[in-house]
Amino acid sequence: MFIIKDDLDKDALQNAAKKVEEKFLKLLPKAVDLEQQVVDAMTYALMAGGKRIRPFLVMESARIFGVGESSALRVAAAVECVHTYSLIHDDLPCMDDDDMRRGQPSVHKKFDEATAVLAGDALLTLAFEILADEKTHADPRVRCELISYMAKALGVNGMVGGQMFDLLAENQELDKIRITRLQRMKTGALIVFSSEAGAILGKAEDKRRQAIKGYAHDVGLAFQITDDLLDEEGSSEEVGKTVGKDATSGKATFVSLFGIDQTRIMATMLISQAIKHLDGFGKKAENLRNLAKFIINRAH
Amino acid sequence: MFIIKDDLDKDALQNAAKKVEEKFLKLLPKAVDLEQQVVDAMTYALMAGGKRIRPFLVMESARIFGVGESSALRVAAAVECVHTYSLIHDDLPCMDDDDMRRGQPSVHKKFDEATAVLAGDALLTLAFEILADEKTHADPRVRCELISYMAKALGVNGMVGGQMFDLLAENQELDKIRITRLQRMKTGALIVFSSEAGAILGKAEDKRRQAIKGYAHDVGLAFQITDDLLDEEGSSEEVGKTVGKDATSGKATFVSLFGIDQTRIMATMLISQAIKHLDGFGKKAENLRNLAKFIINRAH
Repeated sequence: MFIIKDDLDKDALQNAAKKVEEKFLKLLPKAVDLEQQVVDAMTYALMAGGKRIRPFLVMESARIFGVGESSALRVAAAVECVHTYSLIHDDLPCMDDDDMRRGQPSVHKKFDEATAVLAGDALLTLAFEILADEKTHADPRVRCELISYMAKALGVNGMVGGQMFDLLAENQELDKIRITRLQRMKTGALIVFSSEAGAILGKAEDKRRQAIKGYAHDVGLAFQITDDLLDEEGSSEEVGKTVGKDATSGKATFVSLFGIDQTRIMATMLISQAIKHLDGFGKKAENLRNLAKFIINRAH
Repeated sequence: MFIIKDDLDKDALQNAAKKVEEKFLKLLPKAVDLEQQVVDAMTYALMAGGKRIRPFLVMESARIFGVGESSALRVAAAVECVHTYSLIHDDLPCMDDDDMRRGQPSVHKKFDEATAVLAGDALLTLAFEILADEKTHADPRVRCELISYMAKALGVNGMVGGQMFDLLAENQELDKIRITRLQRMKTGALIVFSSEAGAILGKAEDKRRQAIKGYAHDVGLAFQITDDLLDEEGSSEEVGKTVGKDATSGKATFVSLFGIDQTRIMATMLISQAIKHLDGFGKKAENLRNLAKFIINRAH
């Protein structure tokens, strides 16, 4: 699909995923009565697999900025809680109506719709609870900054707004500016937060923080563009969810606007640009460089 | 319905409601494209009226502990955002399936289900964003405490857990212990947070904080017990939502367990107990005392 070679250390990716999974199992609240069902649904959704790219971004960004692993793991777990909440709600019949997720029944299929709504709500809430705890960072100012930033990334000008926009976008005239903004809100904002979290935790100086932010913006957009390509080209089996829905629904995507070849070129250019932002970080950023390449190669 | 006389200053209640409404209109995020619809739904739900009891608890508790109005108003707005989110999600067809709320169409009826899910998600997120902002309190430790506390009140061991429990409770054998726990989670936790928020903002000493907490626990439970009585006795017109559902669904309530007379006595006792907790606060707590009485009188 792409010609970029990535040397991403798959063990590093898997190792981080395993650690984050252990962490959020520990962070899940304990139920004592019938409310156990919502904990079961949260666990089911969280443990359904996935590459854990956002937590990996947090961990690698934390490493660059010299942040301790226990802080980073908590933020990584919070980010994956939030990502999982968004998948559960997006899969609901009233939203994207997806019965499958990562090759398994979606939460509302495995349990029911009410449980899916509540499991999403509880995961979102839990993410903020994790960030506010002093175990995440000794300085409460840093914790508040993480919370503020994450809330903005998730709200009307971020993920929720992006999802609303996307639901209303069928048969709308979307030009490059609008579609880019849509994707920055829907997918980009949380990826940028994940990448920048290490800089916040490490109280990085502004120049270094802007560099990681630049990386994150480009990677976030490339990620969404690759999703559009996967939706166009991939099979359900490869992608693990229903594909070809955008084309059927007449929804504008990068592919429908620019065609497959142009879209590939855009993704490749964004990835080079992303990697360029990391020039100042030397060898420590090698995993982030390879992750960027991996992201556009992920279908293969 | 009850014989307790309340001298609640209705102007004070209405004044606080008006100020809080102005505040959250200011705090609502601005949309620039199709995502405006989710802001419209948030506005519709927030401005649908209601007595604003939770914000009033925040404001009065803040007054007792000498907290400035601008801090208190922000926390009051956050609490009302969170309360509104819970109403929107609870009204969904997959949950309590209520088409009316405060005499108006519920959000999923006025807009659609997807917009209702997203508006709830965005209000929950916005509440945390409001609390994390330094305008809420100069000390970030206080902000983190508010966030932590609110998240716990809303999560699996609070509101979401209570709603899950409630949905699964039909035809379950519920004794007084289980039903009391259910109500503490579902309604009580947010009322306790609202009442205690002033003590947190004012960094109150432990003894005074425990007193307001005691008040809040009793008021919270009395509030739910009165809801059960209203559901049994009130008309839809008075209550502004569908009533008589608990009896039809065979769901255990305080009324079904103890009968109307016993339940009234319980509510009255809880209110006396609540007021007793305020003994040390003198005249400053007069509104809170009257609010407690007002809560069990609210159907008339």
